[in-house]
Amino acid sequence: MSENTEVVLADRPQGHLEPGHFRVQDAGMPVAGAGEVLLRILWLSVDPANRAWMSPVPTYVAPVKPGDVFPGFGLGEVVASNAAGFAPGDLVEGVTGWRRFAALPARGLRRLKRREPVTQHLSVLGITGKTAWFGLEEIGRPKRAETVVVSAAAGAVGSIAGQLAKIAGARVIGIAGGEAKCRHVVEDLGFDAAIDYKAESVGEGLKRHGVKGVDVYFDNVGGPMLESVLFRMANFGRIVCCGNVSQYDTATPAPGPRGVPGLLVVKRIRMEGFIVLDYEARYDEAEEALAGHVAAGRLKYVEDVLEGIDRAPEGLIRVLAGGNTGKTMIKVA
Amino acid sequence: MSENTEVVLADRPQGHLEPGHFRVQDAGMPVAGAGEVLLRILWLSVDPANRAWMSPVPTYVAPVKPGDVFPGFGLGEVVASNAAGFAPGDLVEGVTGWRRFAALPARGLRRLKRREPVTQHLSVLGITGKTAWFGLEEIGRPKRAETVVVSAAAGAVGSIAGQLAKIAGARVIGIAGGEAKCRHVVEDLGFDAAIDYKAESVGEGLKRHGVKGVDVYFDNVGGPMLESVLFRMANFGRIVCCGNVSQYDTATPAPGPRGVPGLLVVKRIRMEGFIVLDYEARYDEAEEALAGHVAAGRLKYVEDVLEGIDRAPEGLIRVLAGGNTGKTMIKVA
Repeated sequence: MSENTEVVLADRPQGHLEPGHFRVQDAGMPVAGAGEVLLRILWLSVDPANRAWMSPVPTYVAPVKPGDVFPGFGLGEVVASNAAGFAPGDLVEGVTGWRRFAALPARGLRRLKRREPVTQHLSVLGITGKTAWFGLEEIGRPKRAETVVVSAAAGAVGSIAGQLAKIAGARVIGIAGGEAKCRHVVEDLGFDAAIDYKAESVGEGLKRHGVKGVDVYFDNVGGPMLESVLFRMANFGRIVCCGNVSQYDTATPAPGPRGVPGLLVVKRIRMEGFIVLDYEARYDEAEEALAGHVAAGRLKYVEDVLEGIDRAPEGLIRVLAGGNTGKTMIKVA
Repeated sequence: MSENTEVVLADRPQGHLEPGHFRVQDAGMPVAGAGEVLLRILWLSVDPANRAWMSPVPTYVAPVKPGDVFPGFGLGEVVASNAAGFAPGDLVEGVTGWRRFAALPARGLRRLKRREPVTQHLSVLGITGKTAWFGLEEIGRPKRAETVVVSAAAGAVGSIAGQLAKIAGARVIGIAGGEAKCRHVVEDLGFDAAIDYKAESVGEGLKRHGVKGVDVYFDNVGGPMLESVLFRMANFGRIVCCGNVSQYDTATPAPGPRGVPGLLVVKRIRMEGFIVLDYEARYDEAEEALAGHVAAGRLKYVEDVLEGIDRAPEGLIRVLAGGNTGKTMIKVA
């Protein structure tokens, strides 16, 4: 094995992402410049949004270009530091990129209060768990006895969002693909019910579960499923626009949802998008709350681990196809 | 002339509303029962949303059925009262229906502190003006130096919304159909600029006016124009979903706007619908604020008056076709 390994975007995908869109290559050992730290990367996060960043259209990050080391999020340990406040052995998170070692400006990194197992910092306490937490806390705001619907309910964010809504006292219905995932969200995670969108339409499922109106829809997928739930929202309902995974990995995007803006007006619905990175100043608060729920046994999390940095592309392709349950991550070191 | 006259929905329109969908007929003089008042109706409000109420699909009011007196909003004077707190001569507003006299439960009516000219109670201080006020106050919340775009800018609500945004210190661009309306919103109402959507695309117009990102879009029309503005929203932009007039009077609704939910996520956009009726407890506050702006000469309003109750259908058809400037109302008495 060479000193370092990196995963580079080889080609911009047009439709479905494939392994050939990446290149895993040897690299030299970087050196930390002034204000930088050298990181040994321990774990990499695989997130559906990674696919959206590959689009030539800018999102909230610059578009990833062919030849770029894929700028994924990760967890690393400081090996050497040229930055005040960072010392060897510190655990940090940030956009490490998909590689084994990186020299990065310290100002882009966040030191973590280490908790064991350390993977929690990428899953339930990480970007994933915090996305669920801020989405509900800031946008969805479920009240006791309200009905909350969560799409991609067995996924990294949805599984946490649904459980947090249960903790808030709501009735929670998950939407997931396949019987196994549906059983998982009900039996393991405590959702009140689940709809297998591969076996029935979301509309029929909501009807079958006696849903008169959806108060909060935590939407991770967009597309036709958003339209289906929109038509069943309650007055003063809130749609947490967290992700659009049904549309990231396709060359033929779905049309916009009918009912926008007509139903928004008539039912006084709020639809609101957010990016967890905007809440960085409040990460500690979210992590404490999430850690408290985990410690009390109220919040479960599942991790979907692939070993070896060369498997990062496979992990992302799996997530985009809905092949994961829980948080997908790459064990690097 | 008979004792009373009423305008009844004769037929449910499928596509464009036409005069033949209504019937103007003689009626008897109603008698106020217990808890009711007898009203002489002075002015009727004509609102684009009236058309939406004719759809068989329930909105926030029950669908209007053929044979129903059209349940429009109006301003009346109490002629006789069987209700505590209401006396002959009182000016009231409420869903009077399109007729000359009505006996109505007092609990559905609101007594007004009479201001002259009394038409203000339907225009700048009425449902129309308050819709603009609550939409901006509660949802749009424009800040100084932000860019606000208003559609149907020469219309009853848009004309007030744009001026209120100017008062808040924003840069305001109106979208209207035709050169005369565009000149009106800039020269008479003080908007910073206008886009004539009949002469250029909204996207080109925004570009021509150097708009980098729209912070608040006060949307009265929905449809393709909503999509055009959505693609030019700034991060953390807000879309006030006030109306969908482009879609009320058609049998072939436009598809939903592309960019929902993708752009909402990436740009952290909030889209929110509202109905002014939900804010009834705060009407006095809004009216005082609006009356203060009018008195100070900061807020202008235009009234589009048709004389005679038989012209109510014509007024509504005109509004749906964008033929009005300012608030359309029917002078009954």
